[in-house]
Amino acid sequence: MTFIYPGSFDPVTNGHMDIIERSARLADKLIVVVMTNTNKKPLFTAAERAGHLRALTAGLPAVEVDCWEGLQAEYSALKEADAIIRGVRNCTDFDFEMQIAQANKLLRPETETLLIPASGKYACVSSGLAKEIAACGGSLRGIVPDLVIEDYYRKRGDK
Amino acid sequence: MTFIYPGSFDPVTNGHMDIIERSARLADKLIVVVMTNTNKKPLFTAAERAGHLRALTAGLPAVEVDCWEGLQAEYSALKEADAIIRGVRNCTDFDFEMQIAQANKLLRPETETLLIPASGKYACVSSGLAKEIAACGGSLRGIVPDLVIEDYYRKRGDK
Amino acid sequence: MTFIYPGSFDPVTNGHMDIIERSARLADKLIVVVMTNTNKKPLFTAAERAGHLRALTAGLPAVEVDCWEGLQAEYSALKEADAIIRGVRNCTDFDFEMQIAQANKLLRPETETLLIPASGKYACVSSGLAKEIAACGGSLRGIVPDLVIEDYYRKRGDK
Amino acid sequence: MTFIYPGSFDPVTNGHMDIIERSARLADKLIVVVMTNTNKKPLFTAAERAGHLRALTAGLPAVEVDCWEGLQAEYSALKEADAIIRGVRNCTDFDFEMQIAQANKLLRPETETLLIPASGKYACVSSGLAKEIAACGGSLRGIVPDLVIEDYYRKRGDK
Amino acid sequence: MTFIYPGSFDPVTNGHMDIIERSARLADKLIVVVMTNTNKKPLFTAAERAGHLRALTAGLPAVEVDCWEGLQAEYSALKEADAIIRGVRNCTDFDFEMQIAQANKLLRPETETLLIPASGKYACVSSGLAKEIAACGGSLRGIVPDLVIEDYYRKRGDK
Amino acid sequence: MTFIYPGSFDPVTNGHMDIIERSARLADKLIVVVMTNTNKKPLFTAAERAGHLRALTAGLPAVEVDCWEGLQAEYSALKEADAIIRGVRNCTDFDFEMQIAQANKLLRPETETLLIPASGKYACVSSGLAKEIAACGGSLRGIVPDLVIEDYYRKRGDK
Repeated sequence: MTFIYPGSFDPVTNGHMDIIERSARLADKLIVVVMTNTNKKPLFTAAERAGHLRALTAGLPAVEVDCWEGLQAEYSALKEADAIIRGVRNCTDFDFEMQIAQANKLLRPETETLLIPASGKYACVSSGLAKEIAACGGSLRGIVPDLVIEDYYRKRGDK
Repeated sequence: MTFIYPGSFDPVTNGHMDIIERSARLADKLIVVVMTNTNKKPLFTAAERAGHLRALTAGLPAVEVDCWEGLQAEYSALKEADAIIRGVRNCTDFDFEMQIAQANKLLRPETETLLIPASGKYACVSSGLAKEIAACGGSLRGIVPDLVIEDYYRKRGDK
Repeated sequence: MTFIYPGSFDPVTNGHMDIIERSARLADKLIVVVMTNTNKKPLFTAAERAGHLRALTAGLPAVEVDCWEGLQAEYSALKEADAIIRGVRNCTDFDFEMQIAQANKLLRPETETLLIPASGKYACVSSGLAKEIAACGGSLRGIVPDLVIEDYYRKRGDK
Repeated sequence: MTFIYPGSFDPVTNGHMDIIERSARLADKLIVVVMTNTNKKPLFTAAERAGHLRALTAGLPAVEVDCWEGLQAEYSALKEADAIIRGVRNCTDFDFEMQIAQANKLLRPETETLLIPASGKYACVSSGLAKEIAACGGSLRGIVPDLVIEDYYRKRGDK
Repeated sequence: MTFIYPGSFDPVTNGHMDIIERSARLADKLIVVVMTNTNKKPLFTAAERAGHLRALTAGLPAVEVDCWEGLQAEYSALKEADAIIRGVRNCTDFDFEMQIAQANKLLRPETETLLIPASGKYACVSSGLAKEIAACGGSLRGIVPDLVIEDYYRKRGDK
Repeated sequence: MTFIYPGSFDPVTNGHMDIIERSARLADKLIVVVMTNTNKKPLFTAAERAGHLRALTAGLPAVEVDCWEGLQAEYSALKEADAIIRGVRNCTDFDFEMQIAQANKLLRPETETLLIPASGKYACVSSGLAKEIAACGGSLRGIVPDLVIEDYYRKRGDK
């Protein structure tokens, strides 16, 4: 089976890594797809985010990393994906993911959506939280992988 | 009874049309009101949106279309509306609509809010989804009425 | 328009009365229907509940009271109801009502469901709460109509 | 991959069949497991339910049907299941499934839970709804498979 | 401040103990109240449950344990409690607790309700889960305190 | 006990005042903290908002007002706060607050979060609603304190 795990990953969090590790065991191939069509000004460029994901998944042979500017359903069709993987933490996430899942089913019926319950310890972890903590100068330890923390400070030092 | 159905309708979706058709049967007059006080840059102007709605409801004699820049409660008072109609798809919608309904009740106690359950097949359909699919060049067929799709491509062709 | 408001009404609460008064203004006829097909041992018999509702709605000429043992959709068909009215207080209510509404739509497409937001002050009021308070010997004042309180104590005195 | 799909299936609904057909395409083996440890008096015996499922999945070679009286986590361990499949329709379902998923993860960390969004048209379909409609003498057409409807009437006729 | 933490505690779980330890630090006195007015056949008698709680909170000087058959609001009045403490795990819990909190406020305005977010690792833990695992012969380790596990097996051995 | 109640308070609403009055009775000191690190263009400056809060809490000796640009967890550490107070109205609020609470627990384990159920009559009241009504020229009476209404019109008159 080929699964895709689309997201902004800006930045990759420990919650994302948990979903990747758990779903990689269920697929022959898991393509983690950095979606680049968002309007929001990113913390990291799509190439940087893909770089983080490649480094962090180096030990997971089933995982590939890619970038995509367009609809998830188009990417699913291109890769003939069997399923789209998404992590869910709470009802607000769930309502959002159900809408996206139904839309993707409408646009590309051959690809299912599989929602993976977030681990309890990552229930608060999100890219948005990481950005807010970083903006306030707080510590990201335990929220995003060390590699991403280092890159974040290296980038800030550059400026 | 006079019901009003306020919304941005940017663009009108098949989900909106389903709510209009179902609620028009319950009222002597149903005024579909294009709200124009939003800050968001619209896809279609208020006049264009009202035009779409007028064309799409031409066969529904109980339906009128209007535009309004202001509070829903003020428009309800102006038209002596008996009820405001809103479609709801999920809990996130519901929490939002409950707050608006309670606020409208506070500002204009004579007008009730009636929430109509979205049809299952339109549970994912929203103006936001339509905009996102359009921005990615995907097909809007089945999500917004054909008339709106044609107008969207005509507008893009103009530019 | 003919609306029906089905429920167990065991006992009628001030929250039910609020929904009845608000929706009676929107219909030519509002039939409050005591559903009797539940397995739960009732506090009041269906006839007693209908009696309470008749007394409490005596001043509302649009309101009729009836009893029904069967599906809501069958009763809707029998009365050619245009809509079923249901009050909703929170997401748990909403999820439940959405399922019932979709089932009723499947069984009887001609009848819509209209969800009315419960008034803030009745957000905690339910027949279940009333039963629990009564079982503990607490005061039902403000939760159910005085007429129902009196009948409750009269019944207990009988035993 | 081996997936299990546990449930009471009393009776099997069209919503269950939709989840089975969709998830069977994602697994090498999908074991549909009739859980028999519930206290509720069943409509059909576990053997009857398993019979319905076997007949209904005869065309799906990846699907096996089994019965189990015990914890899902124990069955997962016995079959070395890679994932447990569960359908979700709304937030109430979701909150329930998240708790079960976390409990199963605690008891058997090697097995993931994958939540599959119910199709919009089956959002109201449940075994509970089917039982209620059947108890009121309503039509189950479109809610449960024809085979189950026939068996239900055959059983009633027996009595 | 005097806080009360009412519950069935049948059995006490590690999730309950987490709420007790966290809220005991916020009060001069925290009274854990075993509510005994439920209809459900209990696993442990009220006296046994109070015994478990007393043993488990022996090291927390601010904590008292009591039993009560009646309304929470009456107990709050009796003890002049400043607040009722309740743990919440998800939206379903939240909707339930909001109703109870509003009812308690109505019956006893001087006592507030404070909802404490359950720790992520206890998001699945409940007395109901413990009972279900126990009924299936599964291990309760990590879900309820060891003392409760031992007492559970001692009781079963008695029979 | 020292509690903090962080928020934007732009503007202070009657819902905020209700939470302040109710939680002030539960603490030796309640610090209402105007958070100033938001990107949104405020209606009132942080100093103006703090001024409103100081005037409105003048009769509550346990209440202090402060401003903070940074993480809540840092402020909690600085003041050695025992708990963070937050009002919750519905599931959408709840999901958001649960994430913030878990993040604050991660960053500063010594400080608990206590969620206080919003009063039914303030279930629709928010700073966002107040801003929207103000922008449309509607009346803020009953939604924000009179003092804030006056200051709002005084500021508009200045321009």
